[in-house]
Amino acid sequence: MNGIGALLHPRSVAVIGASADAGKMTGRPVGYLQKYGFDGEIWPVNPRTDSIAGLRCFPDIASLPGAPDAAIVLLGPERAEAAVRDLAAKGCQAAIVLASGYGEANETGGRRQEALKEAAGTMRLLGPNTIGLVNLTDGMMLSATGALEVGNLAAGRISVVSQSGGILGSLLSRAADRGIGFAKLVSTGNEADIDSSEMITHLLEDGATDVIAVYMEGLRRPEVFKQAARRAAELGKPIVVYKVGRSESGARAATSHTGALAGADRVYDALFRQCGVIRAESFTDLLDIPAALASGRRMAGNRVAILTSTGGAGTLLADNCGLAGIEVPAPDMATTRRLAALLNEDPGAIGRNPVDVTLAGLRPDLFRGAIDALLESPGYDAVVVVIGSSALATPDIVAGAIVECQARSGKPVLAYVSPHAPHLVRLLNSQGIPAFATPESCATVLRALHRPTVPAAPQAVAENPSVLASLPPGNLNEAESKALFARFGMPVTREHVAADARAATAAAHELAGEVVLKVLSRAIAHKSDIGGVRVGLAAGEVPDACATMLHRLQQAGAPTPEGFLVQERVRGGVEMILGFHRDPQLGPVILLGSGGVAAELFQDTALRLLPIARGDAEAMVEELKAARLLRGYRGAPAADVPALVDAVMAFATMAGTAGERLLEAEINPLFVLPEGQGVRAVDGLVVLR
Amino acid sequence: MNGIGALLHPRSVAVIGASADAGKMTGRPVGYLQKYGFDGEIWPVNPRTDSIAGLRCFPDIASLPGAPDAAIVLLGPERAEAAVRDLAAKGCQAAIVLASGYGEANETGGRRQEALKEAAGTMRLLGPNTIGLVNLTDGMMLSATGALEVGNLAAGRISVVSQSGGILGSLLSRAADRGIGFAKLVSTGNEADIDSSEMITHLLEDGATDVIAVYMEGLRRPEVFKQAARRAAELGKPIVVYKVGRSESGARAATSHTGALAGADRVYDALFRQCGVIRAESFTDLLDIPAALASGRRMAGNRVAILTSTGGAGTLLADNCGLAGIEVPAPDMATTRRLAALLNEDPGAIGRNPVDVTLAGLRPDLFRGAIDALLESPGYDAVVVVIGSSALATPDIVAGAIVECQARSGKPVLAYVSPHAPHLVRLLNSQGIPAFATPESCATVLRALHRPTVPAAPQAVAENPSVLASLPPGNLNEAESKALFARFGMPVTREHVAADARAATAAAHELAGEVVLKVLSRAIAHKSDIGGVRVGLAAGEVPDACATMLHRLQQAGAPTPEGFLVQERVRGGVEMILGFHRDPQLGPVILLGSGGVAAELFQDTALRLLPIARGDAEAMVEELKAARLLRGYRGAPAADVPALVDAVMAFATMAGTAGERLLEAEINPLFVLPEGQGVRAVDGLVVLR
Repeated sequence: MNGIGALLHPRSVAVIGASADAGKMTGRPVGYLQKYGFDGEIWPVNPRTDSIAGLRCFPDIASLPGAPDAAIVLLGPERAEAAVRDLAAKGCQAAIVLASGYGEANETGGRRQEALKEAAGTMRLLGPNTIGLVNLTDGMMLSATGALEVGNLAAGRISVVSQSGGILGSLLSRAADRGIGFAKLVSTGNEADIDSSEMITHLLEDGATDVIAVYMEGLRRPEVFKQAARRAAELGKPIVVYKVGRSESGARAATSHTGALAGADRVYDALFRQCGVIRAESFTDLLDIPAALASGRRMAGNRVAILTSTGGAGTLLADNCGLAGIEVPAPDMATTRRLAALLNEDPGAIGRNPVDVTLAGLRPDLFRGAIDALLESPGYDAVVVVIGSSALATPDIVAGAIVECQARSGKPVLAYVSPHAPHLVRLLNSQGIPAFATPESCATVLRALHRPTVPAAPQAVAENPSVLASLPPGNLNEAESKALFARFGMPVTREHVAADARAATAAAHELAGEVVLKVLSRAIAHKSDIGGVRVGLAAGEVPDACATMLHRLQQAGAPTPEGFLVQERVRGGVEMILGFHRDPQLGPVILLGSGGVAAELFQDTALRLLPIARGDAEAMVEELKAARLLRGYRGAPAADVPALVDAVMAFATMAGTAGERLLEAEINPLFVLPEGQGVRAVDGLVVLR
Repeated sequence: MNGIGALLHPRSVAVIGASADAGKMTGRPVGYLQKYGFDGEIWPVNPRTDSIAGLRCFPDIASLPGAPDAAIVLLGPERAEAAVRDLAAKGCQAAIVLASGYGEANETGGRRQEALKEAAGTMRLLGPNTIGLVNLTDGMMLSATGALEVGNLAAGRISVVSQSGGILGSLLSRAADRGIGFAKLVSTGNEADIDSSEMITHLLEDGATDVIAVYMEGLRRPEVFKQAARRAAELGKPIVVYKVGRSESGARAATSHTGALAGADRVYDALFRQCGVIRAESFTDLLDIPAALASGRRMAGNRVAILTSTGGAGTLLADNCGLAGIEVPAPDMATTRRLAALLNEDPGAIGRNPVDVTLAGLRPDLFRGAIDALLESPGYDAVVVVIGSSALATPDIVAGAIVECQARSGKPVLAYVSPHAPHLVRLLNSQGIPAFATPESCATVLRALHRPTVPAAPQAVAENPSVLASLPPGNLNEAESKALFARFGMPVTREHVAADARAATAAAHELAGEVVLKVLSRAIAHKSDIGGVRVGLAAGEVPDACATMLHRLQQAGAPTPEGFLVQERVRGGVEMILGFHRDPQLGPVILLGSGGVAAELFQDTALRLLPIARGDAEAMVEELKAARLLRGYRGAPAADVPALVDAVMAFATMAGTAGERLLEAEINPLFVLPEGQGVRAVDGLVVLR
């Protein structure tokens, strides 16, 4: 049994600092272990009493009758370190430290946290600043969360990993009200040792867990998380994450709360997207989506039938489904006829969706018949039953009918409860019908039930820093940057470096046609701002242009350039940006975006963490609003999208090969030419460490 | 007493088709009138019984002892018409028809609805297909909604107007659970006579109503609604609208539900924005926002202090506030010192927001002191108190402290309840502290409490269709279109109409410099698609260009053009679009947007219904992402925004003056030149009826 296994399934638990007063926070853990029927050994440790809750109480850790599998340390930060050291010495597998005042508080706390980690040695540590761990599958509670006071906690197929103990308690109490059950809930707190990524990895292998809901403030080991997400996809066990730090205020609060670094939220978004993790957009979604996924049912397409006995709520739901991109098509002819016969209605009045059964909704046989007809229709991938106030009088009959119909079908069946009726929501959820009190939840959940497949896992690129061996640190100039791009197969403009005006003119003659003349300088990042770019010159115009350019640079006080760059003029493509940078928290990031003003003004960019697979690069293109432009907008020729995808892959390979010395890289603009004509890197910049 | 007044405050109510069986829907209204203490006359009408619920029952309407102020008709659609006719004959002021099977069902129903309206004559009619009207201020219920079965309905300052009866019931039961009280709730149903706009107008003058919440499927009389919204702004009584039909599925469902035409949702958005109506984005917002506004308190700025005893929930809330554009700044020095002294903490640890009081939150004196300190700080415009599970044990003390602090301040105080604790939410709301169970609701509500002022009401433009007198129906050509624009003060390109190549060449010489040559044709809307535009010609190139153009038109099979248009070439501005069209439901609409590809690809457009005030035009510019571009993006010169606003106003004046014959108009592109240089309409199209 490894350390985390010991936390989830201990045969013996030591409770350090347990109180005999059940009303105190320190009195809770022993009480909860007993209340939920833990059948292993419970060893309270407290020098001031002999017995707690009918159990023998030990004066200190050394006196324990053996090495406990797990321990809960309820002492303050001043005394927790010694207890952890003693537990480790005793041979305890894993300890949970609840106290706060560590890394989340200040620098002193940070040092205290390091000392605590060191005291634990090879013993695993959950926390500090955690509310502990709840195992509802087996009734083993190693927690002080007040949410366990509630009596109606159901075991279920969802496990929760939360960096906040308070949020864990909030989810537990909210789920209890909704009739949603959990398998395990773990608060990882400050993550001095066990972090959320490791806990997720472990819980994926738990036989009682089908879905994992994660409350995240920041990720300490993105690589471990990525591997967990890949494993989750293999196992068909979805991970749903609600992550704060989407706004600056939230990021600041998160940092000071558990000391987790926030990282750029858009990069998290990219991470989740590329490894198939579902991001919950609202806090409510963090319960709603897992609750629906726990049914194990999925939508094959995205067409839903809405069955309602109350027109307004059906309309409300249809509107929200449409907004979420879920189709609400009218029933096909056969289904319409079947419904019309069943309800004794004119087919003309019934061939709509929402299917409004009005008062027939009160007759269980008709109600069941209508649900069956919609579930059996090849035109629908799921059915949502809208429950109006008429059902409140006979909740069991309504729920029974839905449960019965669901059992006859493999498609998801959901319920939207229009009036305030928590008992009905609870009843339905507890009988396996995901039920929701807001139309937004229903729509969100339907979207989560119909998910595209995750792109194949990427191959890591072998690092070979020697490709940068001859290059200096700092900014490279345009020619050096593009030469590096070209080494990895990126098509760049035909161009020549020229030391002076004479060489530049010769280069222009060789290129033939109109050329672009640029100043070549590592020191000048924005060449055009100081007159360092001239577009559309004939060879004969080059000497004068060179002279003017040098004069203007001198006037602007710019350092002496390395020379000139003379390049072909590229026309008639779609302008894009391709970029690379390192997120301080999550690592190397690639960016593809609309070029020109659009990139910044309209934020039309797609991000991915490296490495990426070709499927990721294709998905990046599709994610952009500019995808319409690339496909040939308003009669313009379609652009060479396969070549663009090649370029993204080449750029990613370059970044992976170059390794840590590569800080930033950008191609701006990257022209995507018409189909069959490829792409051209027109300008570029590389920054090395 | 007018008809609607009679519905809200009747002294006598006839209940047509009342049943003695209180369990039946038709048995409810008499029961509800009695249960909620109606002290006027109740006259049940039913030929099959002499007495209902202890009241004398009349065999028919003719036998009633007098003209009832109001009547509820519970009969089916087959018999309702006769009852309405009899009620009108008896002198009844207003009748409510609950039956469905009218305009919402099919064409037969539509005819039935017209007949019903006719039968009512001058008697006012609510419905059909309504659940009726609830007056909680005075305990007068003219409704059959099952939501009235609930016992704990509180009177409050919010009135509800809903086109759906089911939604009215849903709001009523949800509000009861939350401790939110209502003044009046009216379901307008199919709106054969009284529509939601009229009902809103009436309720604005109700002394017990401070906020109006509206569930809208479609608006029948936008002008009446606009006037109501203006009146609401004068009275300081906000209108909050949740409108469906945002998606195609929803629009279709709404049309078939109450027969209300959907109209383009973006135009509704414009309507709400320009007349200061708050749009609820989620169904939950439709209760949450009015509940907060009913406190009468508003935020002077957008800075909020979050006081929490549970770090995770504080972080969650801070993140959501940030996303909603609400600032969560750290406390100022004085407030930090005050909090530190109060909580006996190091100022370094306490100078954050969320202010985490941890266990001090359990001590009422400290809790009150902290709330007071934040409310009194000039750095905050509102305070949100986060309530964790520790408060569940002593809800009255927590609520009491918050209520006490609020009373000492004029700023809004809200509560976010982190665990599932409906009793605490109810307790707080009923004591005047808006309390919410989701962080999104808190953030949304804060945004609604801090609203910019509504632009001044616009002056209507006097119609003068004679400006179009000389113009033919159909498309105008570019020269005709721009001449019309120019009549209203819109700067257009300098240009000349030329009958042939010779005249075109002469025109080019007169304009001097590079010119643009276009084919002039009413029949060709997209000139450039068929080679009908040449940019940057010298005068000497014009004859050849004309010949080539004519040749290509012939080859394309285009009709013979009216001639050529020779115009100056405009450079160096920001490209915009200015458009006009008529929404089939809401009327004349003006559109300002980013030009070129951006308009369609990035949907960067702002809409308003006409007429508009100058403040509206300014707000349109600010609404665009392109506003950054106009202000001078990346070192480019700032554009002439006042001239752009002038152009929007000129376009609006043109549309208002032209009247009904003007179907569409567009300037595309409209170049906005650098500051002081104005704008130029470069191309344009007008479509007349």
